[in-house]
Amino acid sequence: MKGFAMLKLNNVGWVEKEAPKAGPVDAIVRPLAISPCTSDIHTVWEGAIGERTDMILGHEAVGEVVEVGSLVKDFKPGDRVIVPAITPDWEAVESQMGFSQHSGGMLSGWKFSNYKDGTFAELFHVNQADGNLAILPDNIGIEEAVMLSDMVPTGLHGADNAEVAYGETVAVIGIGPVGLMAVAGANLRGAGRIFAVGSRQVCVDAAKFYGATDIVNYKDGSIAQQIKEATNGKGVDKVIIAGGDLETFEEAIDIIRPGGIISNINYLGSGDYFKVSRLGWGCGMGHIRIIGGLMPGGRKNMEYLSNLLKYKKLDVSPLLTHKFDGLDKIEPALMLMKDKPRDLIKPVVRI
Amino acid sequence: MKGFAMLKLNNVGWVEKEAPKAGPVDAIVRPLAISPCTSDIHTVWEGAIGERTDMILGHEAVGEVVEVGSLVKDFKPGDRVIVPAITPDWEAVESQMGFSQHSGGMLSGWKFSNYKDGTFAELFHVNQADGNLAILPDNIGIEEAVMLSDMVPTGLHGADNAEVAYGETVAVIGIGPVGLMAVAGANLRGAGRIFAVGSRQVCVDAAKFYGATDIVNYKDGSIAQQIKEATNGKGVDKVIIAGGDLETFEEAIDIIRPGGIISNINYLGSGDYFKVSRLGWGCGMGHIRIIGGLMPGGRKNMEYLSNLLKYKKLDVSPLLTHKFDGLDKIEPALMLMKDKPRDLIKPVVRI
Amino acid sequence: MKGFAMLKLNNVGWVEKEAPKAGPVDAIVRPLAISPCTSDIHTVWEGAIGERTDMILGHEAVGEVVEVGSLVKDFKPGDRVIVPAITPDWEAVESQMGFSQHSGGMLSGWKFSNYKDGTFAELFHVNQADGNLAILPDNIGIEEAVMLSDMVPTGLHGADNAEVAYGETVAVIGIGPVGLMAVAGANLRGAGRIFAVGSRQVCVDAAKFYGATDIVNYKDGSIAQQIKEATNGKGVDKVIIAGGDLETFEEAIDIIRPGGIISNINYLGSGDYFKVSRLGWGCGMGHIRIIGGLMPGGRKNMEYLSNLLKYKKLDVSPLLTHKFDGLDKIEPALMLMKDKPRDLIKPVVRI
Amino acid sequence: MKGFAMLKLNNVGWVEKEAPKAGPVDAIVRPLAISPCTSDIHTVWEGAIGERTDMILGHEAVGEVVEVGSLVKDFKPGDRVIVPAITPDWEAVESQMGFSQHSGGMLSGWKFSNYKDGTFAELFHVNQADGNLAILPDNIGIEEAVMLSDMVPTGLHGADNAEVAYGETVAVIGIGPVGLMAVAGANLRGAGRIFAVGSRQVCVDAAKFYGATDIVNYKDGSIAQQIKEATNGKGVDKVIIAGGDLETFEEAIDIIRPGGIISNINYLGSGDYFKVSRLGWGCGMGHIRIIGGLMPGGRKNMEYLSNLLKYKKLDVSPLLTHKFDGLDKIEPALMLMKDKPRDLIKPVVRI
Repeated sequence: MKGFAMLKLNNVGWVEKEAPKAGPVDAIVRPLAISPCTSDIHTVWEGAIGERTDMILGHEAVGEVVEVGSLVKDFKPGDRVIVPAITPDWEAVESQMGFSQHSGGMLSGWKFSNYKDGTFAELFHVNQADGNLAILPDNIGIEEAVMLSDMVPTGLHGADNAEVAYGETVAVIGIGPVGLMAVAGANLRGAGRIFAVGSRQVCVDAAKFYGATDIVNYKDGSIAQQIKEATNGKGVDKVIIAGGDLETFEEAIDIIRPGGIISNINYLGSGDYFKVSRLGWGCGMGHIRIIGGLMPGGRKNMEYLSNLLKYKKLDVSPLLTHKFDGLDKIEPALMLMKDKPRDLIKPVVRI
Repeated sequence: MKGFAMLKLNNVGWVEKEAPKAGPVDAIVRPLAISPCTSDIHTVWEGAIGERTDMILGHEAVGEVVEVGSLVKDFKPGDRVIVPAITPDWEAVESQMGFSQHSGGMLSGWKFSNYKDGTFAELFHVNQADGNLAILPDNIGIEEAVMLSDMVPTGLHGADNAEVAYGETVAVIGIGPVGLMAVAGANLRGAGRIFAVGSRQVCVDAAKFYGATDIVNYKDGSIAQQIKEATNGKGVDKVIIAGGDLETFEEAIDIIRPGGIISNINYLGSGDYFKVSRLGWGCGMGHIRIIGGLMPGGRKNMEYLSNLLKYKKLDVSPLLTHKFDGLDKIEPALMLMKDKPRDLIKPVVRI
Repeated sequence: MKGFAMLKLNNVGWVEKEAPKAGPVDAIVRPLAISPCTSDIHTVWEGAIGERTDMILGHEAVGEVVEVGSLVKDFKPGDRVIVPAITPDWEAVESQMGFSQHSGGMLSGWKFSNYKDGTFAELFHVNQADGNLAILPDNIGIEEAVMLSDMVPTGLHGADNAEVAYGETVAVIGIGPVGLMAVAGANLRGAGRIFAVGSRQVCVDAAKFYGATDIVNYKDGSIAQQIKEATNGKGVDKVIIAGGDLETFEEAIDIIRPGGIISNINYLGSGDYFKVSRLGWGCGMGHIRIIGGLMPGGRKNMEYLSNLLKYKKLDVSPLLTHKFDGLDKIEPALMLMKDKPRDLIKPVVRI
Repeated sequence: MKGFAMLKLNNVGWVEKEAPKAGPVDAIVRPLAISPCTSDIHTVWEGAIGERTDMILGHEAVGEVVEVGSLVKDFKPGDRVIVPAITPDWEAVESQMGFSQHSGGMLSGWKFSNYKDGTFAELFHVNQADGNLAILPDNIGIEEAVMLSDMVPTGLHGADNAEVAYGETVAVIGIGPVGLMAVAGANLRGAGRIFAVGSRQVCVDAAKFYGATDIVNYKDGSIAQQIKEATNGKGVDKVIIAGGDLETFEEAIDIIRPGGIISNINYLGSGDYFKVSRLGWGCGMGHIRIIGGLMPGGRKNMEYLSNLLKYKKLDVSPLLTHKFDGLDKIEPALMLMKDKPRDLIKPVVRI
């Protein structure tokens, strides 16, 4: 079986491996569409998860089931399925606590291209199939559906953790594909005013499409200053951090109201710590909540989030700026994510 | 001062009263637009709140402040304001508990045309102005704004109490103006599939506009049966009851999943009790939550909900099927609500 | 293998069956202590779950693992374990939604002596062992630990669903073992005043031990009337229903404040429906929430609840009024639950 | 009228002022018992809130109402009342959002000895009396009751914000009076294991009384290291920070599990920022929530928290290590808080 892998740090290439086998509760899936992610770039070229050898990359896919284990009840070969990037162990204590992302330890619900081979291959393995696959509804295209693996749940999780409510003012910092889905998530939860912080035109246009009411460009000066001015000094109810770096938290603290929430969905790949201003945080008394969390995966989320596409509540097609056909196009698609041309939001590869 | 009043049960007419005076924390407001409500009909012709004599009707209004008490800080004569139907006593223990609707006792946050004269007059009195008025944003028309007094907050409260979440399937039973705002509320909270139960064409069209994906007409058979068939027997995640009567709860129980919520926003005007099926409720073990609640009023809600109009997230204009001009048109507008012609959703009177 | 079974409706007796086998994710457990439950009585003599033939009874046990499936990671033969009455399928969509009790359908997380043989046997089968067993801490006796299977989680779930908070006034209706654990649960969540409604002396004494501040005896008149008088007409913040019948809900509505919660943990075994008073429920507007739910099972709950015993925060020994030794004592222990002598709270059988 | 005041930074003394007057919604109260607080020390000797001139100190008191404004409904001269340290403006938008502490701006619910004269006087002024006073129950002594002004609500708020649940493992860092009430709060919410971090014997004894199961002394090495060892590397579910400084957050991050909460109730008086470790925080993905908040004041909280004393659920007497009689003893009592002798928890002055 062929797969496109991280050979070692800073090196990628095709590898030949034995086809995976399904254990009693697992499934083997053949990808129909995949999409590379910035995390793949972090993994290979920034060492975000450390060294790996010949590990097949990729964690976003829709596919067709080709084999299921003897205990799998709800899926069978031939089913077309959505596969989440995060595939928890559902019996784990952490899952029972509501944090399936961390089943087995911090971030351990993330298995593809982390603890095992990913989706950029002729076949890939899915643990606990009944809990981690979802049937692809007929009226969703495979290119759109692959956005359900990671972009949609991550962005919407940011808005969920921010507890966005009717009429609130929300700032989304960073409007790559995840940030755009955070804008959409805030909008889907009933936000009023939505500040989108970004500069590339293709992203700005998409942000407006997803419900942003104000665009803030860091090239026009301090983000915090611009947002404070636009809100007459009141700042915002919620901040969703979907880009930037550790310094971004300082700007977030600067614009959040007492009782507000700062919700991070940006994988923080480098640096030692972020800082929280004592005074900005109300001397420890301001009820400003800070949270950051990995998207929840699993079947239920895939089923419910796919409803948004199925019932036309969310249109992910503006994300899909670059489309490819054929397994061999995984490499150029991944390189696009590495090079980030100005007209890119997200590439997708039909296989 | 002239006002249009409930003279006694089953009798309405114009009365002449002394102009109200503002206490230290109150305001006096001159209406710019008002709207009659089904509750006014219940009050006069069904005796829903018992006998009243020469009580000025009406609890929906936007207006202009003409007087404020000495302790009012944030409003002054000339301010154009949104006035919520529910004007709580904010210092009350119930308000501090998060149930300002019941400040001073069950439903006692509802004062207009209940405990005191309402808004259908040349002037009306608003208690605790700093807590109960909100500045009308410039870009919202007065006819639209008056929907913020009751229709928008009541409908959206139904979706809030139902805790509607991304991709959920929701049934809204009853699609008069409140039910339509419940559809909009479910949609604004990210529902996937939305069943709207109703039959009048003008309401059906509006329901689709607000996000309904499926229309269910009771003339086509049992509502519960239709919804169960459409969902392959699974039923819905949430039910919002915005119409019907006490029997409606039985249909709601019939279609709700374990762990689901039935959220009532229909004022139950007659009958002794509703029934909850032992088996449908999982022998007391099914985690089916039943809740019903009066809309939350007050300034914060008016400010945040008006953001939805200001930032074009919610368009209430399809509700406004009948528009009138002049204080004297309150009577025909009210009679429309009594007679409910087939093309009516909601009348509004500009003054 | 011997087991004590429901032979058919109204008939119990010993049966001989083949020993159960563990599937890949399951375990086989030998009981060390078991306890009969009122549900066993409902099952056999009231037909609460319908006809069953030669089904081994019992769903409360602590035991010793004797076999585990090949995929079980965290348990091994010889481990002493707490076994919850409810053993969900953790990968199910319902579990992922937070309602593992209903994994696979309403109440389907309840498997022992419902869908499969129970714990009153030489050996019993536990599905998804890693998700449904918990190691028995050394300092907890087996008689006490068996209360963790059902009595403790059911009672505490009632207080959780009632969202009892600091200083609240709570009424617990019914003070059998489950109601007593609801009293303890309300107390453990910081309730202020706790009304315990019951009459048997052994239960009254235990209720006081668990934190009840007021005892209400139905023989002294209407429960609702007594509680309203004791609270100067204000009623209570929360009601937990742990006994009585369908009529009990009417009394609960009668004493609950606006915004209060009625939380049922009483298995409603007979009757068609309960009634909710229109006026008592604030004409549908009073924010009185009604919920009823099966206890959550699984490993996480067993681990966390056992901490309460391990760290001396909860002492279940007053529940254990009758102790037996030997498998053959299951029958007399069960008959005690059927006959309910006045000095009984809960029997336990050491094996 | 005499009062004990901050004359200027680093200077205290008695001042003579005109007696305060009640506005229409306010009350004037004569103190029966007061207690100095560490915040008074921060205010005078650390400049925590900046310069003040002749501002009467103190924000903890129970007293007797001597005058009420014309609109006050529920209190009258002669009533014995509990006065919370935080007296919000209840009609403010922030209060309507659930953050009354910040009514009018960050921390602006704190008025006594911040924006106006405090309680260390012959008389003091209470804004919005109906919302901010509570009747003192007969069976609570005035010395105990004065702990309800600040110590009890602050400590319990820490446990509330940490969302402590049944059987959880909680670390409380700092066991002065506020930390001790955080221990009690965690215990009252059903925690299992409670680590109390402190070293003074009087505090250690009190911590055990309030439910601490493990004592950690910083003199025995790193707090984080000790707690990790005691939990086999798993750490704790929740951390409540009730002492220490900005560095303390680093230790908290070090011991918290994914999905855990760090809840700060320590007024952070100096330093620029605290740091959050990127890796400890799961690269921004670990669902570790960080929150810090001022106690909620107001009547409802006083009424509900006083229930804990009234119904013997919480005994604050172990806090009261030093008792004085007479207004003139305010000075030595305050100096005790400044000097912190080893046997001090909290002084109280009966007047």
